[in-house]
Amino acid sequence: MSSHPASSSAVVDPDPLIRKHRTAGATLTVTANGTPLADREVVVAQRRHKFLFGCIGFDFIPLANGETATDDGERRSLGESPASGSQQVADLWFDLFNFATLPFYWGHFEPVRGRPDTERLLTTARWFADRGIPVKGHPLTWHTETAGWLMDLSNAEIAKAQVDRIRRDMTDFSGVIDMWDVINEAVIMPIFDKYDNGITRICREIGRIPMVRMVFDAAREANPHATLLLNDFDMSAAYECLIEGVLEAGIKIDVLGLQSHMHQGYWGEEKTLATIDRFARYGLPIHFTETTIVSGHIMPEEIVDLNDYQIPEWPTTPEGRPARPTRSCATTRPCCPTPPSRP
Amino acid sequence: MSSHPASSSAVVDPDPLIRKHRTAGATLTVTANGTPLADREVVVAQRRHKFLFGCIGFDFIPLANGETATDDGERRSLGESPASGSQQVADLWFDLFNFATLPFYWGHFEPVRGRPDTERLLTTARWFADRGIPVKGHPLTWHTETAGWLMDLSNAEIAKAQVDRIRRDMTDFSGVIDMWDVINEAVIMPIFDKYDNGITRICREIGRIPMVRMVFDAAREANPHATLLLNDFDMSAAYECLIEGVLEAGIKIDVLGLQSHMHQGYWGEEKTLATIDRFARYGLPIHFTETTIVSGHIMPEEIVDLNDYQIPEWPTTPEGRPARPTRSCATTRPCCPTPPSRP
Repeated sequence: MSSHPASSSAVVDPDPLIRKHRTAGATLTVTANGTPLADREVVVAQRRHKFLFGCIGFDFIPLANGETATDDGERRSLGESPASGSQQVADLWFDLFNFATLPFYWGHFEPVRGRPDTERLLTTARWFADRGIPVKGHPLTWHTETAGWLMDLSNAEIAKAQVDRIRRDMTDFSGVIDMWDVINEAVIMPIFDKYDNGITRICREIGRIPMVRMVFDAAREANPHATLLLNDFDMSAAYECLIEGVLEAGIKIDVLGLQSHMHQGYWGEEKTLATIDRFARYGLPIHFTETTIVSGHIMPEEIVDLNDYQIPEWPTTPEGRPARPTRSCATTRPCCPTPPSRP
Repeated sequence: MSSHPASSSAVVDPDPLIRKHRTAGATLTVTANGTPLADREVVVAQRRHKFLFGCIGFDFIPLANGETATDDGERRSLGESPASGSQQVADLWFDLFNFATLPFYWGHFEPVRGRPDTERLLTTARWFADRGIPVKGHPLTWHTETAGWLMDLSNAEIAKAQVDRIRRDMTDFSGVIDMWDVINEAVIMPIFDKYDNGITRICREIGRIPMVRMVFDAAREANPHATLLLNDFDMSAAYECLIEGVLEAGIKIDVLGLQSHMHQGYWGEEKTLATIDRFARYGLPIHFTETTIVSGHIMPEEIVDLNDYQIPEWPTTPEGRPARPTRSCATTRPCCPTPPSRP
């Protein structure tokens, strides 16, 4: 299945690293009403952890909003599933994950200018927050899935609309969503040539770094307490060069987002650790923001952007086969905010 | 032969562009002793042009230095051919080209610290200059073919040696060589992993943009009148991102060097024009610094760096087949300062 077979001889054993960086000695005093409990059996168990292990929460927008399967309202946000059956999936979801990503693809979030899907998303974000799950918004700036109505504007107007959108949405969700993928896939943004769109137009005109500066400045101003990510699927030297240029230009990035879509083969431990090592050089926290492990055949080598390819059928194992199509994270469908193809 | 077949329908006819940008009306008055020559037949012919069409001049170092085939001196500079037979090749060379590149690969130019090959290269550069041929030096900074003795130094000492080398060589050749590839292949410089070397060490430590700034600052100071190039083989978005970062950081680049090695297939007109268009965005002059069109089979797709691959035999056409191995630019061997593999 893998086009990048890991050489087991070169694999680093992560256990010593985990022991070194993620463990520490501690002395606990167990008391009852202030009195130390001597000679008692004590169970020490981890109840939660700071390591964010998340998934898209797109599927739960109807459930969180009390929409039933018979509602014939439009399914606005990309990747929403029907409300029916979601409670069962939700129970499984909360058993496994401690972090959620919600969709802010501009074209779906605000298909008609001035009518953003704010209320439904805010209700969903609070639904997660009430269950102790921090939420990230994805993405504030992206050429794919962006608003079609930008095409009617001049480049200066597009830039203003982009900045205004960031300010509005980050302000509206402040305190509920305080982590954002501010810009997505800036490496190919100005040279994206599959179809014309407003974001590629302005990025081509002003360049990648001024584009990153513009949207990060707006995001920082709108919510100074938010965690702001730069996110990309390009794991080549191109993303390194972009990061170095952005940092040299004095733009403050809180977290580097690395997409690890494995449509062209399982990465394995060796490639994953090597990728972390390359991007660790910048001294910034790293999030594996998007991860796909696919069943079925892998994406042909000549395809660069996974949005350009969808396999005809998505096989699964007998145990994983659902009675009817739903999503099963990290086994048969991408466990990520980016769907494998545009709907 | 091509892995990038050109779609003829999309090819831009260059003739109208040439007519638009490269031609102008002019009124000539032809006189003899100040008197206009009326009713005479006049021949107007182009004698030279500003368009630099060049080739490596490596082969002529022995000839320019009067070294004969029986000399058993070391062949120091990368790619030098034996002196015998060079005069015939030189005559053909001067018929065709108006620009030469000479080799300054540090490991060959100064294999022993403090003993640079300055005199032979200066004699060769003057030999070209005397024949009206401007010369470019290639490269001042590169991880491949760099000096092995850098490995004995600390990173701070390597950086100082690199800067000192630029100052020394640009000063020594000032007025004879006033065009330089200041840094070569910075995109992969800090992640080059084929073998350890001093230049990768310092680039990994300080980052690409500070590395470019360091060597460009030294070059600009050493010869303020020189034309300074940033040169790379990576024609992907990675080089665009590097260029944007370098320019945003305020580093002045005079010319963008684009390598167009076609070891993996003939580019064709469409890809060539599309490449020019992508890099024209920066408003800087563009040099196609290195070009290879190969006969025989093309380099396998999985090879990234052409220095990692050499085909077992290099076939040629009956007309082009030499009686014994010499070089034939742009037909059977790379017409470029970078050889297809390390010697």
